[in-house]
Amino acid sequence: MSTSCALTDAACRLLDDLRQKRPLVQNVTNYVAMDLSANALLAIGASPAMVHAPEEAGEFAALSDAVVINIGTLSKTFVAGMMEAARVAGASSKPWVLDPVGAGATKYRNETIAELLALKPTVIRGNASEIIAVARVAGFFHEAAAGKGVDSLHGTEAALEPALALARGLGCVVAATGAVDLVTDGARVARIANGAPIMAQVTASGCALSGILGAFVALTPDFFAATVAALGIYGVAGEIAAAGCAGPGSFRVALLDQLAGVGGEALRARLKLSQSAVEI
Amino acid sequence: MSTSCALTDAACRLLDDLRQKRPLVQNVTNYVAMDLSANALLAIGASPAMVHAPEEAGEFAALSDAVVINIGTLSKTFVAGMMEAARVAGASSKPWVLDPVGAGATKYRNETIAELLALKPTVIRGNASEIIAVARVAGFFHEAAAGKGVDSLHGTEAALEPALALARGLGCVVAATGAVDLVTDGARVARIANGAPIMAQVTASGCALSGILGAFVALTPDFFAATVAALGIYGVAGEIAAAGCAGPGSFRVALLDQLAGVGGEALRARLKLSQSAVEI
Amino acid sequence: MSTSCALTDAACRLLDDLRQKRPLVQNVTNYVAMDLSANALLAIGASPAMVHAPEEAGEFAALSDAVVINIGTLSKTFVAGMMEAARVAGASSKPWVLDPVGAGATKYRNETIAELLALKPTVIRGNASEIIAVARVAGFFHEAAAGKGVDSLHGTEAALEPALALARGLGCVVAATGAVDLVTDGARVARIANGAPIMAQVTASGCALSGILGAFVALTPDFFAATVAALGIYGVAGEIAAAGCAGPGSFRVALLDQLAGVGGEALRARLKLSQSAVEI
Repeated sequence: MSTSCALTDAACRLLDDLRQKRPLVQNVTNYVAMDLSANALLAIGASPAMVHAPEEAGEFAALSDAVVINIGTLSKTFVAGMMEAARVAGASSKPWVLDPVGAGATKYRNETIAELLALKPTVIRGNASEIIAVARVAGFFHEAAAGKGVDSLHGTEAALEPALALARGLGCVVAATGAVDLVTDGARVARIANGAPIMAQVTASGCALSGILGAFVALTPDFFAATVAALGIYGVAGEIAAAGCAGPGSFRVALLDQLAGVGGEALRARLKLSQSAVEI
Repeated sequence: MSTSCALTDAACRLLDDLRQKRPLVQNVTNYVAMDLSANALLAIGASPAMVHAPEEAGEFAALSDAVVINIGTLSKTFVAGMMEAARVAGASSKPWVLDPVGAGATKYRNETIAELLALKPTVIRGNASEIIAVARVAGFFHEAAAGKGVDSLHGTEAALEPALALARGLGCVVAATGAVDLVTDGARVARIANGAPIMAQVTASGCALSGILGAFVALTPDFFAATVAALGIYGVAGEIAAAGCAGPGSFRVALLDQLAGVGGEALRARLKLSQSAVEI
Repeated sequence: MSTSCALTDAACRLLDDLRQKRPLVQNVTNYVAMDLSANALLAIGASPAMVHAPEEAGEFAALSDAVVINIGTLSKTFVAGMMEAARVAGASSKPWVLDPVGAGATKYRNETIAELLALKPTVIRGNASEIIAVARVAGFFHEAAAGKGVDSLHGTEAALEPALALARGLGCVVAATGAVDLVTDGARVARIANGAPIMAQVTASGCALSGILGAFVALTPDFFAATVAALGIYGVAGEIAAAGCAGPGSFRVALLDQLAGVGGEALRARLKLSQSAVEI
């Protein structure tokens, strides 16, 4: 059995697991993504909570099974809540996911990312431009990069070296998502070629994936397999949803329907997954 | 004519009334619920306004026909706006609805609830776990309760005693919603068995119901009948929407369509409503 | 060729242009509108960014092709971000759109509008009641006006004189939208009679139009033609979406689908556009 078969098996098992355990996922996320993230988590079978106030974000993190931190719409208060939630997650050995939306676009974003990296995220997920920018903020990558708002200018292969450097430097899993998703823990690289171009026409579709990633890393200490599972399942749900839909409005609706409906059979039939080891 | 027939008649009349008068409902609500609450209020025929800044929340409450306060996503500024809006609503004898999202989960939530209870809400609506937690915050209920995030761990019958205690202690109407909704003013209990399980898979579907409740309590001083009407109509719209929908994404869309379309005929045919007096 | 034919041609050209150039539009907008505005901008083919923190709003404005400022849900921090973004947009000669949601409803809104007007918006878009209230805030109109929340009490013709006064006094384009949209630069008036009544049942549908307006004014210095194009295209997409939809939930989905699908052929067949010069 190839390793990508093992990852497919793990994805099927983790999806069943998620629907039985309904992990409680705390999201400190941006205003645009809150609705879709909460609905995506409910659809797939998890229990979302959107709790970000510094007064309660840490206390709630102690109750949660995982934390997701997304910097899409920053403010001083939100950043304080993020730090608090990430700190408690780390202190209580709970996994937490960082979504560095718009990394590289402003000084404030880069400073916030640097503070969050110091708290050791379990998984970092972004588009290629964001992953490159995060690697630069972390000092692991020095080539010039250009960002344009929150949309990626790069294909994910351009993020391979920065992703490896980040994963090794911080001891975390890094995922660069796009037409082909790329996941690495610094030793292995998985590539997932599911999804559909129309996903880029729905705001917060990447943020919602980060939310779902939080539910998967709550289920197993094998964060590499959990990340591959989350991305693979989201991609398969997305491509089923995209088939025959009339436009981005219909697609967003169908995506939520498919997140609730997708199961092992569709995964086994559709997952386009490959894995390789990398030389260090 | 039985009392539950009288409540059904009242629900039909109030729905017609709402669509003629288009009450202006001010919502100080959470980030996740704003979109769905505003759309649900527009769909049913009311005029929503999402106004929460402390600088204007009180001034706007004086213009509004009712106020809805939902503590889903707290922050210091929002809490200040909530207090201001509730204070002005009370001072000008306008009804206001409290939705104590996530009650019991953190100290900050419980403190905020205590402050709001002191301002005498007209109606409190939550899931069973939240109503139990609110009754404990108010000192009217002392059994241990456990919460898990924002989803209820209890059926609504478990909330009957706490709801009665709250309603009597504060002189308000209390609604615990779930598979069977329970409404009490301390002397009467109504139960409504409409709705559909898929409603729990749509984030903020409870919050949007609290918004709609604001529109109904604006129409009549009979807050018990108004609450029963709002819950019954929402449940009937929800069960029509759920019939044959493909998943939670489609359901959310159909729910808004049905809130706009539902009328007296569907209510009379479908409302599953019973009422009883309680011994004090 | 009549001038309204020239405006129709311009609308078709600008729509093609938008889809090729994908302008980056920074939105400092309200919590309710963020999701729909971002999705509407993505659907039509632009690149939205929702960036409002005072720490980065100005820096981001310097990267953006246009800025949209919407005062729907105010707070001190957001107002600071608005001022910063508008100031940088002005200083770097980038166009910016003001959406004065709920103008006239509270003192805080009127004060914020006065501060923003001093920074010289390129286009102001609101419903008739809002445009009348803005003209009064600016001191260009003195008749008494009444607002009710965020919904208009006036038809757009009632806003003609205030819109002309505002456009002349501030040297900007003013659009009052409703059953018939009215656009003026102080010398010309265009009227657009597309759209559908159901648009008023979808929250933030006006705000999303303001977002799209930001994408169009980024494309040409002819802000009058750009505004007419944005309103005309939105109205045509809206009326196609409304045909045969089951209610406001379905309409919102279909509107996004149509914003992605609408093209020159539909515009030429459906635009109901007239233009006249006004005597000064």
